[in-house]
Amino acid sequence: MLSNPRRTVLPLLLLLCVASAAAGPRAREAGVPFDGDPGPQDAITDVAGVEVGQVTLISGDGTLVVGKGPVRTGVTAVFPKGKAYPGFVYGGTFVANGTGEMTGRALIDELGEFTGPVVLTGSGSVGVVRDAVQAWYARRTGGDPEETFPYTLPVVAETFDGMLNDTFGQHVTKEHVFQALDGAHAGAVAEGSVGGGTGMVSHGYKAGIGTASRRVLVGGVTYTIGVLVQANHGGRDQLTIAGVPVGRRLAAAPPLPPKEGSIIVVVATDAPLLPHQLRRLALRATHGIARVGGMSGTTSGDLFIAFSTVRPEKAGDAMLQTRYIDSLAINPLLAGTVLATEEAIVNALFAGGTMKGINNHVVDGLPVERVRAILRDAGRLREP
Amino acid sequence: MLSNPRRTVLPLLLLLCVASAAAGPRAREAGVPFDGDPGPQDAITDVAGVEVGQVTLISGDGTLVVGKGPVRTGVTAVFPKGKAYPGFVYGGTFVANGTGEMTGRALIDELGEFTGPVVLTGSGSVGVVRDAVQAWYARRTGGDPEETFPYTLPVVAETFDGMLNDTFGQHVTKEHVFQALDGAHAGAVAEGSVGGGTGMVSHGYKAGIGTASRRVLVGGVTYTIGVLVQANHGGRDQLTIAGVPVGRRLAAAPPLPPKEGSIIVVVATDAPLLPHQLRRLALRATHGIARVGGMSGTTSGDLFIAFSTVRPEKAGDAMLQTRYIDSLAINPLLAGTVLATEEAIVNALFAGGTMKGINNHVVDGLPVERVRAILRDAGRLREP
Amino acid sequence: MLSNPRRTVLPLLLLLCVASAAAGPRAREAGVPFDGDPGPQDAITDVAGVEVGQVTLISGDGTLVVGKGPVRTGVTAVFPKGKAYPGFVYGGTFVANGTGEMTGRALIDELGEFTGPVVLTGSGSVGVVRDAVQAWYARRTGGDPEETFPYTLPVVAETFDGMLNDTFGQHVTKEHVFQALDGAHAGAVAEGSVGGGTGMVSHGYKAGIGTASRRVLVGGVTYTIGVLVQANHGGRDQLTIAGVPVGRRLAAAPPLPPKEGSIIVVVATDAPLLPHQLRRLALRATHGIARVGGMSGTTSGDLFIAFSTVRPEKAGDAMLQTRYIDSLAINPLLAGTVLATEEAIVNALFAGGTMKGINNHVVDGLPVERVRAILRDAGRLREP
Amino acid sequence: MLSNPRRTVLPLLLLLCVASAAAGPRAREAGVPFDGDPGPQDAITDVAGVEVGQVTLISGDGTLVVGKGPVRTGVTAVFPKGKAYPGFVYGGTFVANGTGEMTGRALIDELGEFTGPVVLTGSGSVGVVRDAVQAWYARRTGGDPEETFPYTLPVVAETFDGMLNDTFGQHVTKEHVFQALDGAHAGAVAEGSVGGGTGMVSHGYKAGIGTASRRVLVGGVTYTIGVLVQANHGGRDQLTIAGVPVGRRLAAAPPLPPKEGSIIVVVATDAPLLPHQLRRLALRATHGIARVGGMSGTTSGDLFIAFSTVRPEKAGDAMLQTRYIDSLAINPLLAGTVLATEEAIVNALFAGGTMKGINNHVVDGLPVERVRAILRDAGRLREP
Repeated sequence: MLSNPRRTVLPLLLLLCVASAAAGPRAREAGVPFDGDPGPQDAITDVAGVEVGQVTLISGDGTLVVGKGPVRTGVTAVFPKGKAYPGFVYGGTFVANGTGEMTGRALIDELGEFTGPVVLTGSGSVGVVRDAVQAWYARRTGGDPEETFPYTLPVVAETFDGMLNDTFGQHVTKEHVFQALDGAHAGAVAEGSVGGGTGMVSHGYKAGIGTASRRVLVGGVTYTIGVLVQANHGGRDQLTIAGVPVGRRLAAAPPLPPKEGSIIVVVATDAPLLPHQLRRLALRATHGIARVGGMSGTTSGDLFIAFSTVRPEKAGDAMLQTRYIDSLAINPLLAGTVLATEEAIVNALFAGGTMKGINNHVVDGLPVERVRAILRDAGRLREP
Repeated sequence: MLSNPRRTVLPLLLLLCVASAAAGPRAREAGVPFDGDPGPQDAITDVAGVEVGQVTLISGDGTLVVGKGPVRTGVTAVFPKGKAYPGFVYGGTFVANGTGEMTGRALIDELGEFTGPVVLTGSGSVGVVRDAVQAWYARRTGGDPEETFPYTLPVVAETFDGMLNDTFGQHVTKEHVFQALDGAHAGAVAEGSVGGGTGMVSHGYKAGIGTASRRVLVGGVTYTIGVLVQANHGGRDQLTIAGVPVGRRLAAAPPLPPKEGSIIVVVATDAPLLPHQLRRLALRATHGIARVGGMSGTTSGDLFIAFSTVRPEKAGDAMLQTRYIDSLAINPLLAGTVLATEEAIVNALFAGGTMKGINNHVVDGLPVERVRAILRDAGRLREP
Repeated sequence: MLSNPRRTVLPLLLLLCVASAAAGPRAREAGVPFDGDPGPQDAITDVAGVEVGQVTLISGDGTLVVGKGPVRTGVTAVFPKGKAYPGFVYGGTFVANGTGEMTGRALIDELGEFTGPVVLTGSGSVGVVRDAVQAWYARRTGGDPEETFPYTLPVVAETFDGMLNDTFGQHVTKEHVFQALDGAHAGAVAEGSVGGGTGMVSHGYKAGIGTASRRVLVGGVTYTIGVLVQANHGGRDQLTIAGVPVGRRLAAAPPLPPKEGSIIVVVATDAPLLPHQLRRLALRATHGIARVGGMSGTTSGDLFIAFSTVRPEKAGDAMLQTRYIDSLAINPLLAGTVLATEEAIVNALFAGGTMKGINNHVVDGLPVERVRAILRDAGRLREP
Repeated sequence: MLSNPRRTVLPLLLLLCVASAAAGPRAREAGVPFDGDPGPQDAITDVAGVEVGQVTLISGDGTLVVGKGPVRTGVTAVFPKGKAYPGFVYGGTFVANGTGEMTGRALIDELGEFTGPVVLTGSGSVGVVRDAVQAWYARRTGGDPEETFPYTLPVVAETFDGMLNDTFGQHVTKEHVFQALDGAHAGAVAEGSVGGGTGMVSHGYKAGIGTASRRVLVGGVTYTIGVLVQANHGGRDQLTIAGVPVGRRLAAAPPLPPKEGSIIVVVATDAPLLPHQLRRLALRATHGIARVGGMSGTTSGDLFIAFSTVRPEKAGDAMLQTRYIDSLAINPLLAGTVLATEEAIVNALFAGGTMKGINNHVVDGLPVERVRAILRDAGRLREP
């Protein structure tokens, strides 16, 4: 039932029945031209310290029975400085369209700080995930109220997977969340129909989790911007890849209902930035979404969070000290956020794969070869 | 006083051991002078349609064992238009200090609307309460994703009861939440150590839920403002009642640690107001808090929500029509919010009663007779 | 010195010396493909009631002498319901990047209303323009404090024209502002190096004022979205037209310093919308900017305002009544804002023309034929 | 008291006719009990580096003739680090009610920084003051666009003096502004009917400029909070001094029309704080206003700005370094802001004095002796 590699092969077989394997290339490998210079993984984990843990729940088929399935959901956790790090990081948030949830946002807006992780899931599981994150920390502290208090405002965000998943069946449990948190790791990040993105649909095609990164130079130092999205937004006719209106040229596929869905964007960086500067990075996810044709529809929950892995140091009693990049010099970081967001969304689409869910509803994966042909016709395919 | 009817009498007895009955008068009855004209209940339920349901969980004594207790927590649900009403209401929120949680806020800020209820609880139970509200609506809709979708962003707010309660023990269950929701009713509202306020402490004394109302005249029509607070904020030395610095004159009581806690304020009105006007009402809870001496401390989650029970009407395809009060005329509604918030906080204190909680920690109830004496000395007691 | 048609031909000749006539086609006429359906003028004035008045100040040449020139500036005024309309309109604002000025914004955010006009100018003239708008209304009311009070918070926005204009020479006078206000009219809107846009530069080319409109269908009714921009933002390498990275393919032109400048966007609609909905429209200017490659650079003042020409009616003492479009149905209006903003920016570039300014600095006009060739190569030119 | 030295003695004599000398004691000296520990001046200038310059314009009498007078207005400029300091300071703003103007706010919200000064004036003069501040800096830089660019977003705030002053007569000139800026100095700050506060009325009595300070201890270090207000807000019946409802006990005075006016609050500190922390200080002006009975009425422009005099240091190419106080420790600074705002408002009232203005309208000064008697009766007067 779980895509966690430590699980046995049985659930994997089940997975193969309901979701075509997303074994294809990532967008960049397939020749989609993107601006900017990615990191080695082209993933949020290119930011040193960031760890991602995911649990994918796929089981059942056929008619929806609330509480029984079919199940197409999961959890994706992003730790800013690794799962063992107990403290706060600077953060900033931005809401391009607020019909969605990101818990913990008031704290970040107020103090400019939060304790990780940022956890993404389906709309029906925000509560259980939130309490589970708290419980996970309480396990670590022994539940002492004083020591656990800093962890009482977890950051959990959602998009709605009701097109494929038994959203209200509460299939995500505390144990699943613990598994995602405990399993967080650096390195490659699975994309598409995994983790919180398992049941998600974007621009009319199966999508979910996507990630990308950019390396930028500021003041002679190279910094990394990493982005991870849970993409469940956008209409097919809006889909634009590398500036080409791909969506409208993919006419054969039957149109989906014009649900505009939602998208959560997590932006990580190793650049030293103050909280109000991180909010500025978070806002630029909007520009990245727009480059893929998204317009933040009226019921779309487009909520973004950015954090830095650089922490202040103690500088005396009640005093901290920090370095940060001059606001006049942060354009490369803003641009990196725009570009990595754009690519992460396209990556989510390339990795989505076709999936059948509730009531035998089928959501097509992006027809990658046809997309490549369209880009080639427009002179926008990077041939190998 | 334990509102869970399925509990045996044993916890009731236990309750009597851990919490002195708050059988005393409300602040107004005790002679505290407040400005303005309250409604018949002097409660949020004076706004026609508003229903409040509460579940109080009190059990166990002695040393904290996470998951075992002692339990001093609960749930307070406020339905804007009654528990049977399935639709949206206009709302607006304001955050005076954001170190707290109110889920669903992004939706309200974006659309200016939300589906009730507003539910208050302890920090450790936000998640279970949130998912339970969703499940409660899913039960009603049969779990159909389309029909349940509007209920996927519940409004749940918290304050931290870790001074008395086993916060991280997850003692609030889905069934408790259902019980609070199903039990919501018009009429009198229990105050003090009940519902979400069970384990809360304010200005150095036992507090919790408090409520009050004001009737104001605008354009020849009388409207009602109702306020309900979950008060867990403020230092003892700040406590001001009717302008008198009561806190500093109550010297005998041992000082509590200077935790400033949090306060959630729910503002209801039957005045027709647009969403952006309701945000303006919500902000005025700040002034009410300040009148009791609160300063919205740095780790205080002071989050407010205001809603109107007046709904727009359909006026054609995709078209709505609504009346609303001219912004130039809303001063009485702003003032009513300030004054009802002030009184609701003082009511929470008058009703709190002494309570013993985790590790036999005792929080004193407000010494009402001494407060009356202090007010009398200052010429500020309304004698009967 | 002024582009006002009622002036004599002499200043017009002067204009021809410093700015090549922008007599070319608008972007759409030149074959740039844009999505959506424009109104008859493809201008903000397609929204019935909107009037635009502009004064263009161009004089002098050579070395900058503060207070002497060269002068390349002006004023563009947009009246939501015509210059004779004395009252408020609903409005909403959004700031994508705040390093700029739009006076009157606090009022709009608070009351959701403002008295027009929205006036655009250079950074050095915001004050004189602001006071002049107040004086213009005071002239109408006879200066009675009570009657003039509603006009004390004018909306004036700016971008920085210091690349071409003697910004700090205070060349805009109260009389110029009166002239722009008195001269406001419906119908065609001059674009490019006119009015407030006279000295502006965008994406490395001469730009300034641009406008466009979209007609959209909601609930069986056709509404119009009109946009007017004062474009002074963006890097040349970012310039994207119809999805094609035009900027990087225009290699011959010498690169300008990477000043990212600013952009003001004014969104008008005849759709009945509440203030909080208008803020949502304003935010979508961000998506429009992104579609042309803009990223809202760190010193860019990207401030947007949206208003509706539909007003509430009196419905009793202190009571108003209004229709408005259901938030669930406003996607076409959001999309119209995105698309009209995109086209308005490109229009500003097509109309800019080459200009020589302070210290004989020359800013090239967009090489329209080369742009057409690039689009043709990419299969993105609409041939006539 | 007319601080314009170029004026003849005639207006000075006139001044004596229209404004009774506010030669009385400040509120604290008169025995009003305030919490907390003020600095040596009990003024914003207790924050080292802060300089205040004021120009007061009082002339004419009798019937209002726009442009002729009577004149009761002026300018108050607050330089965070002195008038000679050319750079940025960290700042944060908050709007408790937005029906007013503070230019430059978008910049502060975005970058967290601004170049001083903060200048206060009447509603009719915001523009001329704004452009004059720009011109004052352009004079210093020689008008070079590059060097002057950082000064293009001046911070100018206003309240409406139309009850006494010929608001729309544009009596404040660029020269007056230069005079206020050039004359800024440390040390004592004139209060009441001076500078921008000349024509202002608060809680039904003549008010204007007020100031106060608090010294607080954080982490073993003493910091100063200084506040300066331009108070033009509040109803007489709301007036509360030291918790005593003074306004309602001052029955003899004829009630003024219930205009709620506006208040601008400037908060200065020498505590090292980040921009988002300064916004938190600014918000606490709300609590200070509430303690004097204010409720931020619907047409009140309650706009606040806080700044720190501590600047970051260069720490490499494009890198800055700064110390700041841990957010968990800032409660004394929040409280100091609340308390100094409260006292500054009361000081403005104590210093106001009676004034006659347009159309021979007379606004009474606060009857100080009667206020003292009321406080004495309530046991709230500190006898000498």
